[in-house]
Amino acid sequence: MKNVKLTLEYDGTNYCGWQRQSNVITVQEEVEKRIGEIVGDKVDVIGCSRTDSGVHAKAYTCNFKTNSVIPPEKFYLVLNSVLPDDIVALNSKEVPIDFHSRFNSKGKMYSYTILNRSERPAINRNYVYQYGHNLDCDLMREAAKYILGTHDFTSFKSTGSKVKSNIRTIYEAKIIEDENKVIFYITGDGFLYNMVRIIVGTLLEVGEKKIIPLEVKTIVEAKDRTKAGRVVPAKGLCLEKVMY
Amino acid sequence: MKNVKLTLEYDGTNYCGWQRQSNVITVQEEVEKRIGEIVGDKVDVIGCSRTDSGVHAKAYTCNFKTNSVIPPEKFYLVLNSVLPDDIVALNSKEVPIDFHSRFNSKGKMYSYTILNRSERPAINRNYVYQYGHNLDCDLMREAAKYILGTHDFTSFKSTGSKVKSNIRTIYEAKIIEDENKVIFYITGDGFLYNMVRIIVGTLLEVGEKKIIPLEVKTIVEAKDRTKAGRVVPAKGLCLEKVMY
Repeated sequence: MKNVKLTLEYDGTNYCGWQRQSNVITVQEEVEKRIGEIVGDKVDVIGCSRTDSGVHAKAYTCNFKTNSVIPPEKFYLVLNSVLPDDIVALNSKEVPIDFHSRFNSKGKMYSYTILNRSERPAINRNYVYQYGHNLDCDLMREAAKYILGTHDFTSFKSTGSKVKSNIRTIYEAKIIEDENKVIFYITGDGFLYNMVRIIVGTLLEVGEKKIIPLEVKTIVEAKDRTKAGRVVPAKGLCLEKVMY
Repeated sequence: MKNVKLTLEYDGTNYCGWQRQSNVITVQEEVEKRIGEIVGDKVDVIGCSRTDSGVHAKAYTCNFKTNSVIPPEKFYLVLNSVLPDDIVALNSKEVPIDFHSRFNSKGKMYSYTILNRSERPAINRNYVYQYGHNLDCDLMREAAKYILGTHDFTSFKSTGSKVKSNIRTIYEAKIIEDENKVIFYITGDGFLYNMVRIIVGTLLEVGEKKIIPLEVKTIVEAKDRTKAGRVVPAKGLCLEKVMY
């Protein structure tokens, strides 16, 4: 029995996120079905995280155990021959039998892309959130400092998820301006439900000068979801990488 | 009667190019139909160029004449309310009655985007040409100098188009590397049928060291389509801007 780790890129537009659910199409279900066809047996694919409906991934990691004779480092090539257009495997390799994509993850980096113009996008319309307001990126950068480090992020968690602790550590929060795009890169040891999207929603309020940067410190300390900004749309969010 | 100039962004994936044709869906047909609904009359929309099936545009210009009472500078907002997701109008304005989007154009800039990796893309798959070969961008830059200036570009024209002259002027040819992407920006006074895609196909041969940069000079001088490279796929091509 081998444990095979896969890295996937996917366009989440047409999926209800990663995790298998009844009556909707998910990335996990699609990948498990295709791997099952290849190895001729039912497989459980363990993902590094749930991702929400419409969220994308440039390097989603997952693993599965198999007795397949296909060399682990070639498995992704075989898988790509049967995966749909919107999912592609970037690599595969054998990992220790007890490796677990979620439990062994040391951190993740997400990006969130804003198209900062008045008109909706035609090109790239599934990968950006169009938001046509004046945004002061320096103010957002100043505010982002208050989410760095270890905090109870209750203010930045949507209801509906059950986790033991709301404490997470944010290692880095970068904001890049690129023509008419503003891209947030947020790296942490883990994220609560909708946490990245609520952080971005809150930073946008700073960028629009609805609140001052220091207010973000108060919001973190409040541990109260009603104090933070809204959940920005899923399509701007992308899992960039997973650290082990 | 007013002459209204429109700037459109469109995702060309689902269209057989700009120009109206029977039995296929084109951008021109879609835009004419929507404008017709707004003004309550049939309109002819004059485009700045044909674009091929699957080619995108970030700033395609076109114009139409109308007696509509909608202020020209607001027309694009009304149009956006009825255009499909993959076409958006970025602005509109009144222009002199004799303005013609194609005849008055002084030049165009196209981009061509290569995803330089071994695996096909899932994200952005309709906007890039995946080409997984080692590419020496400096060699391609050296070769690109030979297409600058005024030349007979017969070697870079697909058959099937009838134009009076194959002489065109290329003002600039830039090659940008951005992570695993290689983006060509080519600016000229006009382009022959498939010219940008054949230029890129030829430069790729240089990048792969199949031919030396100086060979591109010989290819230009040959005025022989069989000497140049292949036509690279449409989806990597995007009309960036039109100069007047």
